[in-house]
Amino acid sequence: MEDEFAWLDRVSPRRFFQPNVTEGIGDDAAIYQTSPKFEDILCVDTLVEGIHFARETMLPTDIGYKALAVNISDVAAMGGSPLYYIVSAAVPATWTEDDLIMIYRGMRELGDSYEMDLLGGDTVSTDGPLVLSVTVVGRTEKGKYLTRRDAEAGDVLVITGPLGGSAAGLHLLWNQGELDFEDEANRTLLQYHQRPDPQVIAGRMFAHETSRAAVNDISDGLASEAWEIAEASEVSLHIDQDVLPLAAKWHPQFSDEQALQHALFGGEDFQLLAALPADEWPALEKQLQTEGIPALKIGTVQAGDPAVTLHAEGEQVPLLKKGYNHFSAENQRKGSE
Amino acid sequence: MEDEFAWLDRVSPRRFFQPNVTEGIGDDAAIYQTSPKFEDILCVDTLVEGIHFARETMLPTDIGYKALAVNISDVAAMGGSPLYYIVSAAVPATWTEDDLIMIYRGMRELGDSYEMDLLGGDTVSTDGPLVLSVTVVGRTEKGKYLTRRDAEAGDVLVITGPLGGSAAGLHLLWNQGELDFEDEANRTLLQYHQRPDPQVIAGRMFAHETSRAAVNDISDGLASEAWEIAEASEVSLHIDQDVLPLAAKWHPQFSDEQALQHALFGGEDFQLLAALPADEWPALEKQLQTEGIPALKIGTVQAGDPAVTLHAEGEQVPLLKKGYNHFSAENQRKGSE
Repeated sequence: MEDEFAWLDRVSPRRFFQPNVTEGIGDDAAIYQTSPKFEDILCVDTLVEGIHFARETMLPTDIGYKALAVNISDVAAMGGSPLYYIVSAAVPATWTEDDLIMIYRGMRELGDSYEMDLLGGDTVSTDGPLVLSVTVVGRTEKGKYLTRRDAEAGDVLVITGPLGGSAAGLHLLWNQGELDFEDEANRTLLQYHQRPDPQVIAGRMFAHETSRAAVNDISDGLASEAWEIAEASEVSLHIDQDVLPLAAKWHPQFSDEQALQHALFGGEDFQLLAALPADEWPALEKQLQTEGIPALKIGTVQAGDPAVTLHAEGEQVPLLKKGYNHFSAENQRKGSE
Repeated sequence: MEDEFAWLDRVSPRRFFQPNVTEGIGDDAAIYQTSPKFEDILCVDTLVEGIHFARETMLPTDIGYKALAVNISDVAAMGGSPLYYIVSAAVPATWTEDDLIMIYRGMRELGDSYEMDLLGGDTVSTDGPLVLSVTVVGRTEKGKYLTRRDAEAGDVLVITGPLGGSAAGLHLLWNQGELDFEDEANRTLLQYHQRPDPQVIAGRMFAHETSRAAVNDISDGLASEAWEIAEASEVSLHIDQDVLPLAAKWHPQFSDEQALQHALFGGEDFQLLAALPADEWPALEKQLQTEGIPALKIGTVQAGDPAVTLHAEGEQVPLLKKGYNHFSAENQRKGSE
């Protein structure tokens, strides 16, 4: 199947019936106005057993936690606060009711921390793998939401935290024969994979403490998400490889090159990538640090045809889009290169 | 697995973080206030290939149509207007991109008729059956939504149209060896199954043209839905068997008894069942008829412990809850008795 974006594009309406729709299909989430002051944010993400997660590498609570986290991350990337969630679960007989309760408990652990309310769901049987689909409704102040298309030449390019941790953690889990779960370096990487931390506070700051920002969450890898901003904003992004915060850089099991590959293409990191005016960055950086968010400038935005370029050791190479393929055979192979 | 309601009840929060939540888990949909004048309605329903539909009995366009219809029906049962939908599809390799486009086309056919906008979705791969999950957002004027708990002794019990048509249509489809698709009686029943008509206009009238109404949509059969109103409202419902509008009554392939069983237990009819003040019924009945809605009084509400009683030929029998089990072996057996 062609990639989701192209596919949805073919069924997307060009015009909307409802005058309150502000953003339809195409960004991290949809936006519609609900009152003179607020707009609601709507998104859905689906995790399939064997494709997006495996029982061997994720506890039921982790699965629930992550299924909600990926949606909260979409709300964060739009600059909103998450409010409500509803859950659709197609459940095979191999999953017990206790498993399901643990999945919901994992969701609730994360949801409670954002004061989100579970508002409903539909639980049905299936002969296939577990399919867990979560819908999240968020909210933002009118006009204060973030798209991908607002990057401009001269902007700085910023990332909210380490990259590649999820892919590295998954690699460890698939090769856990000798894995020491007490080792802190291991645990940090596993945490990135099993319990990703959506960047809601950073998203709110990008929306409210800048005059303008283009933002994506890193669900499909830095390269892919940078390309989305470049294409939507019609600019050229330049990333400085040497300053990229590589989650697996100091871990003995990964070479620098592996840590870099995970960061560029691994995906599921759920950091935010933002382009914003250079003169607003110093003050914002301080604010983010005050909140404990280790945001870093990793590059710049320049005029030019949509492109993403990686700069390293005086050279520059075009960065391919090459997205994340979950833990397909190809990806596991890549992980163990 | 225990039934969905009991199961969700175990994970449902007792209190809400968000002050704007009006209705959480437990009715046809959730409600939260979005502005001083309006409340939004949120619901999700999931169809699984082999459980809720089969390629042998439903075209891809029908599947899409129905996946959206079941959600619009939930919005109708709350008295709202449907506005937006997003779609999650877990798609096996046996379904082509053209199939998917037809599914979306079926959704759009129905969605367009309500001026609903498709706002997004997530399409993922699966090794299992097709799982199609649709989330709908609707809206209602503040305080003007319908729950199950507002029935009172003295009310009339009303249904918006024929019952049992979906189950009868499915029965025909599973025995289609000799089925004449040109025959209008057949086509009517197939339509009930493949392209159910959500009762949005009726729901709006129940919400706006009565002083109070308890409403459910008939997704799980009249018996099951009547019980939900009886229990939520703590009243006793009395249904007059002789006036029930049986969709399959005049169809040569079904006995009167079969037509009745389909009406009581078949499910997926997506009519609305409403309890409302008796003195308001005559005027409302005329208004509904003006809109072409063949609503009928089928019984009364009386004081007493929660119960549903069927009256026929001077006798009365308790009506069991016995819900709909989709087209499980048991259900097909029942259909061909």
